[in-house]
Amino acid sequence: MPVGAYEPPYYAVVFTSVKTEAADGGNGGAGAYGETAERMEERVKGIPGFLGMDHAGSPGGLSITVGYFRDADAIDEWRSDVEHRAAQRRGRAEWYESYTLHVAKVERSHGFERGHG
Amino acid sequence: MPVGAYEPPYYAVVFTSVKTEAADGGNGGAGAYGETAERMEERVKGIPGFLGMDHAGSPGGLSITVGYFRDADAIDEWRSDVEHRAAQRRGRAEWYESYTLHVAKVERSHGFERGHG
Repeated sequence: MPVGAYEPPYYAVVFTSVKTEAADGGNGGAGAYGETAERMEERVKGIPGFLGMDHAGSPGGLSITVGYFRDADAIDEWRSDVEHRAAQRRGRAEWYESYTLHVAKVERSHGFERGHG
Repeated sequence: MPVGAYEPPYYAVVFTSVKTEAADGGNGGAGAYGETAERMEERVKGIPGFLGMDHAGSPGGLSITVGYFRDADAIDEWRSDVEHRAAQRRGRAEWYESYTLHVAKVERSHGFERGHG
């Protein structure tokens, strides 16, 4: 990610989740969950106004994914995507013990990169 | 974290970072970095308007920490905390290859918990 990220205002969608054993798998989310996650990552890149995403997590623990979008319309478009909606339903049925979603408008941001100041 | 998180509006401060080898350590951030991280976690809890935090990451990869605050004043108070400022300086000098900070106002949030609907 570039130093300073994106030019505000933009949106950050913070998704924190704890997966079920079925989804957590042995090797980085193998199986249907992993395939769907990859497919969604590919698909969100096609949304006009999608800026990028960050992900962190370890098996058995909390996962955090942050998606960055230019405006609320871009988030609405992603939210209403047909494949995404099907994936969400399957997520609630099979893959998530719990999750929380925060939709937030970024007012300021800055970054640091070693050797760049 | 409770289903639905906190009552909007509130703030989410998203901190994504890649640590140096010195900070990444062998066993979950041992040494000075780990001690400082623990101390900061304890200290931020004393800020009026601090609501909670989430953290995810794995050694060698991206870490994401999200702090939740009631309002911008609470963030300003945390930002100007003397120990926190010293920790930030040391972070730039020793512990971070790179980081990005996004300060964002949460407009809506919701959650899901298995067995709670």
